[in-house]
Formats: sequence, structure tokens, C-alpha cells
Amino acid sequence: MSAPGSSAPGWQDALPAFGRRLPRWAADERLALLAWSRLSEPEDLVAKAFVAGRGARQALERLASPAPVSAAECLLGERTEHLRAGLARWASRWEETDPERDLDRVQTLGGRVVLDGDPEWPDGLALLNGGEPFALWVRGPLHLARACERSAAVVGARAATAYGERLAASIAVGLGDAGATTVSGAALGVDGAAHRGALAAGAPTLAVLACGVDRAYPPSHQRLLRAVAEEGLVVSEVPPGSSPMRRRFLQRNRLIAAVSSATVVVEAGWRSGSLSTAGLAMDLVRPVGAVPGPVTSPSSEGCHRLLRAGAICVTDAAEVLELVSGVAPDAVRRVEARPHDGLDALQLAVFDALPVVSAQSAERIAVTAGLAAPDVPPVLRDLSQRGLASRSSGGWRRAPRGSGAGGDRQ
Amino acid sequence: MSAPGSSAPGWQDALPAFGRRLPRWAADERLALLAWSRLSEPEDLVAKAFVAGRGARQALERLASPAPVSAAECLLGERTEHLRAGLARWASRWEETDPERDLDRVQTLGGRVVLDGDPEWPDGLALLNGGEPFALWVRGPLHLARACERSAAVVGARAATAYGERLAASIAVGLGDAGATTVSGAALGVDGAAHRGALAAGAPTLAVLACGVDRAYPPSHQRLLRAVAEEGLVVSEVPPGSSPMRRRFLQRNRLIAAVSSATVVVEAGWRSGSLSTAGLAMDLVRPVGAVPGPVTSPSSEGCHRLLRAGAICVTDAAEVLELVSGVAPDAVRRVEARPHDGLDALQLAVFDALPVVSAQSAERIAVTAGLAAPDVPPVLRDLSQRGLASRSSGGWRRAPRGSGAGGDRQ
Repeated sequence: MSAPGSSAPGWQDALPAFGRRLPRWAADERLALLAWSRLSEPEDLVAKAFVAGRGARQALERLASPAPVSAAECLLGERTEHLRAGLARWASRWEETDPERDLDRVQTLGGRVVLDGDPEWPDGLALLNGGEPFALWVRGPLHLARACERSAAVVGARAATAYGERLAASIAVGLGDAGATTVSGAALGVDGAAHRGALAAGAPTLAVLACGVDRAYPPSHQRLLRAVAEEGLVVSEVPPGSSPMRRRFLQRNRLIAAVSSATVVVEAGWRSGSLSTAGLAMDLVRPVGAVPGPVTSPSSEGCHRLLRAGAICVTDAAEVLELVSGVAPDAVRRVEARPHDGLDALQLAVFDALPVVSAQSAERIAVTAGLAAPDVPPVLRDLSQRGLASRSSGGWRRAPRGSGAGGDRQ
Repeated sequence: MSAPGSSAPGWQDALPAFGRRLPRWAADERLALLAWSRLSEPEDLVAKAFVAGRGARQALERLASPAPVSAAECLLGERTEHLRAGLARWASRWEETDPERDLDRVQTLGGRVVLDGDPEWPDGLALLNGGEPFALWVRGPLHLARACERSAAVVGARAATAYGERLAASIAVGLGDAGATTVSGAALGVDGAAHRGALAAGAPTLAVLACGVDRAYPPSHQRLLRAVAEEGLVVSEVPPGSSPMRRRFLQRNRLIAAVSSATVVVEAGWRSGSLSTAGLAMDLVRPVGAVPGPVTSPSSEGCHRLLRAGAICVTDAAEVLELVSGVAPDAVRRVEARPHDGLDALQLAVFDALPVVSAQSAERIAVTAGLAAPDVPPVLRDLSQRGLASRSSGGWRRAPRGSGAGGDRQ
């Protein structure tokens, strides 16, 4: 290695010059894929293309070879300088790569590995279009693909308020009631509340981590993560032992967006990481919802920003389920009845013109309503039958239970 | 008139059979228009078409004539039965129609009348496309058309919360700071708070009433309306003395939507009348904003309903002004700087891999970051120059002011 302060070598000098014999596991395509999940970061699309073009085993062979990169070996779309830099990058993790040890570690915890093509591989990952993980490391009793089929990511700020946590939990409960899975990132705040809500309701929940599934991050969520692993699913694309790093969180967010039928942000500051999950979901053309909050709350600023960017306003689990099911928002439910509902324009005009206190003649009511006098009496009789008008010696007035002058005006 | 209980005459029997001599004022086109604003309700599109087709004076002559309606007199699009019913309706108010008296009444209060074609007639009314008022009765020192040029309707629930009233006022203040007018309906709650906010800031405000401009509705807003009439504008399309009725509120709402550059609902229950204003504004292809609030607040349900129906989420006066000016929402302002802003992917990868506590070698940091070892030292020197990395005998670690592990992760 060059000491700090020495002149910097360029990418072109960073050739893998070790040329080792491949270990036994490198002959197994599944184990080779697991090795790649250790050798490269989730964001490394050069690694993804390199492995996709050659197969995991052959890609490992090339990595172990001391031959300089030639233009001839580049596949369509590959560039020699990217390949050269990639081989140098991946080689830096060669020594610590041991997929058999990783697999043991996860299996000891009751976990497993799910690869593309396995029945548990979530369909949504195909949306990543070349950015799919090499492998998913999974703990928990649920069937991963089935759990993702009808699911919503419920994500948001770590610095959530009681409002946000309560809502996250109640959305998770409502999703569970409808048999849908709550996906989240196990972070403090909204994420944790969503998982907890689901667990409390015995509803399915899935935590996607930015670190290995054998680790608890944040540490204070150790018990929560254990519970999710026991009753739901804990998933990661980085191998056991991996620590959480900023870009792993961003990459984790793309997994959340891809496996969930819809993504909902419950609370988010102006620059919350959960906005990245929402943005990635939008990129994947997955429905994105945002829960509004007081405009005076910094914890809702990100949600309002999302709403301005085209997210759908969701206020409860039913509206989140509409996103999950791809149903158009139903804006006309929960309408309470009013005495004058169902009246036609003529009846409404007469009803409006009825005096509330002192009765008036039908003729006078016609003038007030701007109607022809002969048209009014039959309408008054009709309103009377509906219990909306009452007749006295002085004429007609609004029936007490139909009264509410000004109460529904503006 | 037929007594209640007698058999109902149909529209076809309700002929105007009075055949009076027209009063002197009926020869004046302006006064004739004012007469029509008394004879018919704002919603009466048959009256609007009848007068538009003939001119106000000739329309009055026809109303005063005892001749039965003939197919021959119907203009294109008119139907005899509608005309017959219309004449019967309008005749019911003949006795109480006196535009000279109405004009006197408003002028005594320092008011005036604005008709289509007058310089003060707001351009936006043309959007009503045949539903324009016959006349506007106006009180106040501002120039009506100019006040409407850059304006926002700030409307909402009568049953507003402190949150809604505070926001309505602060939006009105912000609109005023930018020289824009706050239009509202002078109702209790949000409307009143909007007017009050504007008045307090010396900003222009316009109240559109559902009753005559000589009346105060709601009665508790008598002082507020007087202040608006003294410093802003009070406007109505119904003549002085007219009382507020449900359908007049709905018709008033269409005026608010038409004269305002944009409409914003601050708080609204699920069935608030302010939703009609927003719906009408949408029909007129005017921008519509809604202020979000807690999903637990019934006073924000209508706003969330609007957001789901396509209204734009607005959280402060600046965002309302964007609607007024027709500017696309700027979703990326107010971004506070972070230490790692401006780093490229390579720099960010090294920054993320820097240990926070115990320094590590550049080689070890390369493994953590998944980078080729030779690439890391120059980046570390660069981060050091930016004050993000610090070097010690043991190697490199994150510089104290750049530290914030986990603080901006998820």
C-alpha cells in the first residue's frame, strides 16, 4: 500500500496481481454468488454486469487470474478501465471472503439464503433491472415471495413524533387485518413503530437491513429484530457480519422499494433518508403515498415535499391498501347523511327559503325562493311528508329537526 | 296562489299574466341589469341566457308582456318550456324589484356597481362562460379588477382549529408581503382569520358575500366586514338586502373561485362547503392548493380528500404564491448543508468507511469501503483537507466535526 502522502496511483495501475488458486467452494455457482455478495458493495453495478455476463464461477476465476485486462475479454457494454478498476476493488476483499463460513453463520441462526430463481425470490426485484442483489440472506418463518405479494413499505423518520409512531403502528395493524405485509427498515422511529404494530397484531412484517442479518442495528432494536426474525422475516443483501454504512442504507432502501407493492412515508424531515425510498419507488413506478401532518411539524416536512412531488395523500390503512391493491382512491366514502340529502333543485330551493322561526305563506316563500307561486305548495307538502317543513295557521316554516340555518352554509 | 293541498299546477300553467307598464328605469340598460340581479337567482342560467340573448331592457319588456311563450320567440338553444317556467319564476319577484332604490342603498354606504365591460370587472369572471353575474355590488377603496389580478382565495372550515386560523392568517400576511390579494368568504373560522390576517398586515383583502353588501353575515363578523369595506373590498352579486341562502353560498363560492388566481383550502371537514369552492376552481382550471394537517383532525379531512383528488399540497405563503404565479413547485429549497455534501461517490465511500473512534490504516479502510487499496490514500488526503478526516499515528479516522455516525443514515 502507498503511505498517506505518497503520490496517488491512478485506476489504471490498480491491477489485481495476486493470481491465486481458487478454493473448493468457487466451483459451486450458489456459493460463488454468495462470494460476490461479499466481494462487492450492493451499489457496484460493474460487479453485477461482470457476474451476469460470465456467471459467478467464471467471474471468480477471472478475478483470481493475474492476467492484465484486455479489450478482447470485454463483453458488450463493458469498458476495460471499468473492469480493471473493478477487479482491483473486488480483490481488496478476497482475503475475507468465505461463503461457506457465511452460510454456516446464518444457518446456525436458523436462517437461509435465497437466490434469483428460487421460489422465495420476490418478483419485485426484477424491477431493479440489473441492480438485483447477488443473494438475499434471510431469517424468519414466512415465505419471502408470498409475504411481498401484497405488501406496503411503511417507512419514515428516525426522529418521529408520537403522531408518526402511532400512525405507523395503526397502518401496520390495518395492513395485517387485510392480510398484507408491512415492510420496513427496522430503524428507530417510524420503522420500528411499523414493525411493532404488525407484531402486536400478529400481522406479517418484513425488516430489510443495511447490515448482516446476524447483527442488530440500531442496537436498541435488538429485541425487536429478534421478534421479527421469529415471527416475520429479516432480510439483507449483505453477508453476515457486515456493518451498516451510509450507502448500504441507500441500497437497502432500493430493496424495500422494489419488494413492496407500495411505499408509504409516514413522517420524514426535509432531508430524511426515507425520501430516498419513496424516490426509488417512484423510479420503479411503484405507488408512493405520504401521510400528511401539521405544516408546523418539521417531522412532516418531507411528507409534504413528497406530496408536492406527486405522492398520493394517505391518511389511514384503508388508503394505503388502495395503493397496495392498485385501486383508484375512493374520495367519496364516509359521507354522513344530512336532512336535505336527496332533495332535487326545486325542493332544495323551497327548503332553503323556509323561515326557521315565524311561519310564512307559500306565496311569500315563492318570492324568497325566486320560484313561480303555483310551484311551491306541492313542494311544501312533499317537504312536510319528509319531516322537513311544518305547517301552522300562519303558513309554513322549517320543521325543527330539519333546522340548522347557517349550520351547513358556506 | 293555490292553497296547500290543492292539486299542483305544472310549469306549463305558470304563465306570467300580469302585462304591466314598464317603469322608467327599465329603459336604462345598466339599471335593467341590476333589476335582473334581483329578479333571478345567481344559479339561474336560463335567466342569464335569456338576458344575454336579448339585452337586459328587451328581456324586461318580454317579462312584462302578457303574451304566451311561442316557439317562434325562442333563440337558438332556448326551449319554450324553460322560457315559460323562467318567466313565471322571475315574475314572482317583480313587485320587489327597484334597481334605483338598490343603487341608492349601496351608494349611501359609499358603494358602487360594477358591470361587465367596466374597467373594474374582473377578467376571471369570463371563465364562468355564461354563468357570469348580472352585476357586482361593491364596497371598498380598492380597484376590483386590479385586486384580483394576483390573488389567492384562502378558504376553509367555519369550525376551524387554532392551527387552521393561524395558518390562514399567516398565508394572508405572506400574500400581502408579495403584493397579492387574499380573497375569502367572510365566514367564521378560516375565512375570517384570512381577512383578519390581511387587515392586520395592511394587505389587500376581498370578501365575497352570499348576501347583500349592506348586510353582515355572520352577524358576529359585522366589525370585520366593516373593516374590509373600509380598507379592502366587499363584493356580492345579489342586490342589497338579500339574505344568505344555501344556494347563494354555493354560487358565491363560484365567484371566489373565478376571480382568484388560485384557491387554497386551509382546513375543511369531510363535507365542508369550501370543498365546493375548490371543486369549482378545478372546473375552471384554476390552481387549487390544500394545506395538510394531522390525519387525526376532522378539520383537515377535507384538505386530505382534496389532496387525493389532485390538489397541490401547500404549507406556507411562499407555496401559495407559486400557485398564484403559476410557477412549478420548487421542491428543493431550504436544504441545510451537511459536512459530506458535495463529495463524489468515491470520496463518500471512503468517508463512510472512516472509523469514528480508533484510527485504522488506509489499507483496512479500503477493505471496509470495498475499494482498491491504492485509490484510498489520495482520497483520505482530500478528505483531510476538507476537515472530514484526521490522521494520527495509528492511521485515519473521521474528524470530530465530520462525525455523526448513524445520524444521517437510514
